Amino acid sequence: MIAITSVSIREVAPRDGLQNEDPIPTDAKVRLIDALSTTGVRRIEAVSFVHPKAIPQMADADQVWARIAKDPRIRYSALIPNTRGAQRAIAAGFREIEVVVSASDTHNRRNLNRSTAESLDDIAGLIPLVHDAGATLEVIVATSFGCPFEGDIDPDRVAAVVARVRADGADRIAFGDTTGMATPRRVRDLLSAVRPDLLHFHNTRGTGLANVLTALELGVTEFDASVGGIGGCPYAPGASGNIATDELVHMLEDMGIATGIDLDALIEVAELAEKLLGRTLPSAVLRAGPRTRLVDAGRPATGR
Amino acid sequence: MIAITSVSIREVAPRDGLQNEDPIPTDAKVRLIDALSTTGVRRIEAVSFVHPKAIPQMADADQVWARIAKDPRIRYSALIPNTRGAQRAIAAGFREIEVVVSASDTHNRRNLNRSTAESLDDIAGLIPLVHDAGATLEVIVATSFGCPFEGDIDPDRVAAVVARVRADGADRIAFGDTTGMATPRRVRDLLSAVRPDLLHFHNTRGTGLANVLTALELGVTEFDASVGGIGGCPYAPGASGNIATDELVHMLEDMGIATGIDLDALIEVAELAEKLLGRTLPSAVLRAGPRTRLVDAGRPATGR
Repeated sequence: MIAITSVSIREVAPRDGLQNEDPIPTDAKVRLIDALSTTGVRRIEAVSFVHPKAIPQMADADQVWARIAKDPRIRYSALIPNTRGAQRAIAAGFREIEVVVSASDTHNRRNLNRSTAESLDDIAGLIPLVHDAGATLEVIVATSFGCPFEGDIDPDRVAAVVARVRADGADRIAFGDTTGMATPRRVRDLLSAVRPDLLHFHNTRGTGLANVLTALELGVTEFDASVGGIGGCPYAPGASGNIATDELVHMLEDMGIATGIDLDALIEVAELAEKLLGRTLPSAVLRAGPRTRLVDAGRPATGR
Repeated sequence: MIAITSVSIREVAPRDGLQNEDPIPTDAKVRLIDALSTTGVRRIEAVSFVHPKAIPQMADADQVWARIAKDPRIRYSALIPNTRGAQRAIAAGFREIEVVVSASDTHNRRNLNRSTAESLDDIAGLIPLVHDAGATLEVIVATSFGCPFEGDIDPDRVAAVVARVRADGADRIAFGDTTGMATPRRVRDLLSAVRPDLLHFHNTRGTGLANVLTALELGVTEFDASVGGIGGCPYAPGASGNIATDELVHMLEDMGIATGIDLDALIEVAELAEKLLGRTLPSAVLRAGPRTRLVDAGRPATGR
């Protein structure tokens, strides 16, 4: 049974979502973030400060951040890969900063061109810099539920990364389901060994909301999600990436778990996002509407 | 927590799936069923005996049934709408017969052109006919989790239908999530009031596997599913219908819950089904592969 009465959702479409889509203009990003800000969501991952050659989708991070209507009730965060990125995020005024390290050494090398141990040393150096600026650092442990190169990741490896960064002063821990290898069983296995503050699930293999359900039973109350399911999976063309915020809100609110988000407003943002991106997004709730949406009684209705 | 160690899956793509797709040739149906029979699945909803003008997709039910390679280890079932259909199913040799009635009176009238009470009387008349032929009758209660015309359906209404058909001698009860209105909360609500033998979920709003997870916790061990997610939703163009058998098997086997089904063989059938239907199917496991499918270490790998 689930004892939770409210959940805090971080909307990651503007950063994590758009980073995995074809680039869109600065104007479109500003429109997307400004629309999200009106839905009741209270946390938005807005941009990342990365080298434009590495991630061209985020080349205009400073302009996007300068132009959006900042709502004082919303916590905006930025992802950074290194000291240079942290300095840019701090200079831009961010007070919530995120950094990624993979529990899988192979994935860390492919993603960041260094070992997990080297990244952990980098993070140890970043923390005082971020704290001195009055900001917080969240460490996102990628491949927490499995690595597309190494396969299953022993929960002890994730726990060791968590222990290290906590000892070094990290403010928050998130577990990333990088390529959608989380399942209810793996969520239970990992969270029995070590607990994050926040979970970042994908829906690559259809278990996205089942994973959330399992995590809720284990007492997790913070989740990343991407409106409409923006952002694909870099390993499987056509596959889904992040869980869709609209699907998540739909399930949670139906359970009596408050998200603070207006589902109808959120679906309108998902519709806007489809126009801005010029493609059909994977969210099922965007397609079918909420369960309370009744059809016109004049339409044909068959089936079991 | 889940105490279940095995689950019985009924594969419904050949009937419920294909009924909601554009018609395909008899040959293609036979190939699909014969391929499914090699996956380890032990129950297949093979055809329905309905008027060809009502459901042209099933006009060749007798030919399909005559031509498939019948595996004596597999329980094949047929859906029927009325006495004429039951007679055809019995004459064809079926020993498992299904009939649908909607808990929602409005939906029953739209679907079957009679009230729920009239359909219940019809079913009472069918049961002795089916039993006299040595067959069993399963009653599928459609709109058990909500009606697209009436909205929420009080669990007491579903319980009343179940009580009536059980009293009349129905052998088995299934609850149908006709238009994907089931959610973990609605599954818990309904099953607290009345229990089915089998659950038929859709994934119309992304909660398909979360619904299964909830039902497993409540002790349900029988589920319908459709390979690849064949079969759309008649109310929402582009929306998903049945939960995908491959997604279901993937989650269950990972949990240590035996299905008897070979996932790799099942995915091959889903690939075949995409060719036979000439369209991309919604199954996420079909797109991304099982979580154990590792990528070539030479491919680019980024993201959290």
